[in-house]
Amino acid sequence: MKNSFIKYVDKPLLKNPIVIVGLPGVGNIGKICAAHLINHLATKKLGTLYSPHFPYHIVVSGKGVLRLLNNELFYHLSERGDRDLIIITGDYQSQTIFGQYEIAGLIINCCKELEVSGIVTIGGFAVGKTKDQPSIFGIINHESLSSWIEQLNVEYCEEGSPIVGAAGLLIGLAKLHGIDGICLLGETPGFFADINAAKSILERIKSFLDLEVDLSNLEETAAEFKGKIEKIQKLEREAGSIKKILEKIAPNDNDLSYFG
Amino acid sequence: MKNSFIKYVDKPLLKNPIVIVGLPGVGNIGKICAAHLINHLATKKLGTLYSPHFPYHIVVSGKGVLRLLNNELFYHLSERGDRDLIIITGDYQSQTIFGQYEIAGLIINCCKELEVSGIVTIGGFAVGKTKDQPSIFGIINHESLSSWIEQLNVEYCEEGSPIVGAAGLLIGLAKLHGIDGICLLGETPGFFADINAAKSILERIKSFLDLEVDLSNLEETAAEFKGKIEKIQKLEREAGSIKKILEKIAPNDNDLSYFG
Amino acid sequence: MKNSFIKYVDKPLLKNPIVIVGLPGVGNIGKICAAHLINHLATKKLGTLYSPHFPYHIVVSGKGVLRLLNNELFYHLSERGDRDLIIITGDYQSQTIFGQYEIAGLIINCCKELEVSGIVTIGGFAVGKTKDQPSIFGIINHESLSSWIEQLNVEYCEEGSPIVGAAGLLIGLAKLHGIDGICLLGETPGFFADINAAKSILERIKSFLDLEVDLSNLEETAAEFKGKIEKIQKLEREAGSIKKILEKIAPNDNDLSYFG
Amino acid sequence: MKNSFIKYVDKPLLKNPIVIVGLPGVGNIGKICAAHLINHLATKKLGTLYSPHFPYHIVVSGKGVLRLLNNELFYHLSERGDRDLIIITGDYQSQTIFGQYEIAGLIINCCKELEVSGIVTIGGFAVGKTKDQPSIFGIINHESLSSWIEQLNVEYCEEGSPIVGAAGLLIGLAKLHGIDGICLLGETPGFFADINAAKSILERIKSFLDLEVDLSNLEETAAEFKGKIEKIQKLEREAGSIKKILEKIAPNDNDLSYFG
Repeated sequence: MKNSFIKYVDKPLLKNPIVIVGLPGVGNIGKICAAHLINHLATKKLGTLYSPHFPYHIVVSGKGVLRLLNNELFYHLSERGDRDLIIITGDYQSQTIFGQYEIAGLIINCCKELEVSGIVTIGGFAVGKTKDQPSIFGIINHESLSSWIEQLNVEYCEEGSPIVGAAGLLIGLAKLHGIDGICLLGETPGFFADINAAKSILERIKSFLDLEVDLSNLEETAAEFKGKIEKIQKLEREAGSIKKILEKIAPNDNDLSYFG
Repeated sequence: MKNSFIKYVDKPLLKNPIVIVGLPGVGNIGKICAAHLINHLATKKLGTLYSPHFPYHIVVSGKGVLRLLNNELFYHLSERGDRDLIIITGDYQSQTIFGQYEIAGLIINCCKELEVSGIVTIGGFAVGKTKDQPSIFGIINHESLSSWIEQLNVEYCEEGSPIVGAAGLLIGLAKLHGIDGICLLGETPGFFADINAAKSILERIKSFLDLEVDLSNLEETAAEFKGKIEKIQKLEREAGSIKKILEKIAPNDNDLSYFG
Repeated sequence: MKNSFIKYVDKPLLKNPIVIVGLPGVGNIGKICAAHLINHLATKKLGTLYSPHFPYHIVVSGKGVLRLLNNELFYHLSERGDRDLIIITGDYQSQTIFGQYEIAGLIINCCKELEVSGIVTIGGFAVGKTKDQPSIFGIINHESLSSWIEQLNVEYCEEGSPIVGAAGLLIGLAKLHGIDGICLLGETPGFFADINAAKSILERIKSFLDLEVDLSNLEETAAEFKGKIEKIQKLEREAGSIKKILEKIAPNDNDLSYFG
Repeated sequence: MKNSFIKYVDKPLLKNPIVIVGLPGVGNIGKICAAHLINHLATKKLGTLYSPHFPYHIVVSGKGVLRLLNNELFYHLSERGDRDLIIITGDYQSQTIFGQYEIAGLIINCCKELEVSGIVTIGGFAVGKTKDQPSIFGIINHESLSSWIEQLNVEYCEEGSPIVGAAGLLIGLAKLHGIDGICLLGETPGFFADINAAKSILERIKSFLDLEVDLSNLEETAAEFKGKIEKIQKLEREAGSIKKILEKIAPNDNDLSYFG
């Protein structure tokens, strides 16, 4: 496995699909939004993205069955039949700069094949403290999309701001391929899963795309999500303390430790 | 040498082979198990795996003869002729994330060519302390294999657990290619070669695969192994102290030092 | 996106073009020089260079519109029609050694296609303190070019000096392909944008290439440039403090944090 | 430039050539030996090896002319016409593990094309202190070469010793391709250019290969070499102090600084 790839499990005929991407990141806003949409819209699995640039561990899911780390693609057929959705989320972003570009390129290729009509990525903008009125920023990839900023009721982002990771990179790469895109960032302290910011963004997307989705129980999605993360963090902390011991005694000169 | 590859020295006709993989890792449980099986079953060399993602040093083996670092593949012809074995062990795992995926992919390709009927990987699950009754966990790569958990008399692993390194990655990648697999992990403090955990896993594999193998002198395998590791550690410690000196004076701006 | 590439937006017929390269670096001398030439000569966009070895973030430019990080190529048609210019500048240099070589190779290929007659790269030579009479050094890539040293009125660089980054690498690679080149380095303290060194180099290039370009308002170019850098630094500092928090809590074992 | 390559400048017909490799490393023993042979035998340039895995800076050689970092290949035609020599030395070894393997593979391919009859690599074995009677070790790549150990009057290396870098890797890779090889390592404190160890190894090689080469003025070779290294170290120290400043202020989040 030397290249990132998408393994498709379905090839539906999608109408003018809009892609919504929410991966793990600051405040996990993107992932909460995507997870909620996948759970509360009628969605089916489109495919799974694997990459040699994800971490080199696997994860145990329900019933002691493991799976490779991945990003997953789902689709939702609009009831009105005018504009379908593709929703992308996942376990991790790439662990390397090169992998970030490789995976973003792969997703953009997928978008071109499926003739998507636009991409919305969701992330967090870390401010390091709580704010009374956290802003939601919108960064478009073409000046002709300024009406989206208004329709979504989001703010312009300060010039020069660096947007790190897949949310920005995807929209930037989409620009090169002539695909319209907007990156939505919620201001967030950054050190906990930020449900309020996620809700604020989902309300805007719901209205913008005219989605019929219930946002009342977002807390549940976030709580379930938080529980999983805390469990993983606990397991990783345990592993981490071992890792430090191993670095001193393990018969190797590398910076990877072996937990397998 | 830009790609990992396997150099085969034999091309036997194997019947329904099961692959057992035990590489260096936590408590070196996997490597001890694989080394013992190779030494105490009638095995022949199948081939050797080389990789540009192993460390960039070579090792001096008996009589001042060097060899490249590698992973080795052995095979064992079942006396009853119904199910042969392939056993894989080695000096190191890959030093990079990308290499972990490349090598795992290479081994899975080998498994497909040889039409293996299943993969068993062995590793350690570090808990950082000694336990009176260390658990042996089994993580399967398909829910249809739950009977293996019972037959092997192992426990289900907690959901969300990350299994780091080749033991998990191989089983995860096997899943993608439709090959049945189970990863066996022994709870271990993690900071010494854990003979008891290795023995506990080998007893289960012996019974599960109906192998005729003597486990009484596992201590000897482990002792021999431990002696080699300690010698290498001593040599590496000496090299390491030099490395620090070199970093200050060597005419280069890199983070590799030269011991050649 | 697995390879660096140049996306051309124009394919002008250029006469004996000279390439001037000024990328970010010590004292930002190269970038200031290139930016000033692009702004004060009649220039058009030739193309844009993208690379998976640039940082994995995007940047917000005017009006909330984002773009990928890049290097840009401009051209200037000489009024006398005898020798045109190509000017290259950008956001960043590659983040990896391998990427430095890949991008330099790409630019040299571009130079060969456009049949350039020479390359001038501009950079800084950090001395860590202010000097009353900072030197301008010239390092040529073939002994036959020693007349350039005189015509440009620059000094020979001490033998053994390492010139780090794209300014040196491009001229070194040009040598392999038989393209004449000189690297101009201004002595600079290195910890601020060095307008004086930039001006000193531009005066020499103006005379050497017989350019009609106004250097009187170089301070303005540098001030505008400095303002942008300070804004980015401020934004990155804020992000950086979050990054540290994230490293402790984020559910991953990587060294990249997510700001998207 | 994405791959390492050798640019040949001559294609002589060589008889049973022996390759001697001495690159920078511990005590710079290999490089001193190779440089002395190149200077004191009648040698011609065979070619130059370039790599995107060398450091990303260039070097200023005589008269302000720069060149890419490289490894160089020379050849020497035996006066008796029975066995010619190829001698390889250079500025640096690869900066990455992957590059170490790539470059070693490239040199071995060159050896196969030129039908070499054996490879001798030279390096240092760091012991961190001065010894009254430093040993010279020989590590062969096939047990059939044990007579070389005797003919060269060198000692066997302790089993398990890791030999880091190109000297070991080349001989290990040669083994895979059926080329005889020996790695000669001189015990050395490791923190200065070790002329005595170099002389001790050259005396053995001179006798083993029946070379007519004057070793009386090895001190001059080493002194000239030491002078160059000290100059570079001084220049790099100056650059290094700037590097630290830049890391705090430079408008980027990378771990490379720009000196160009």
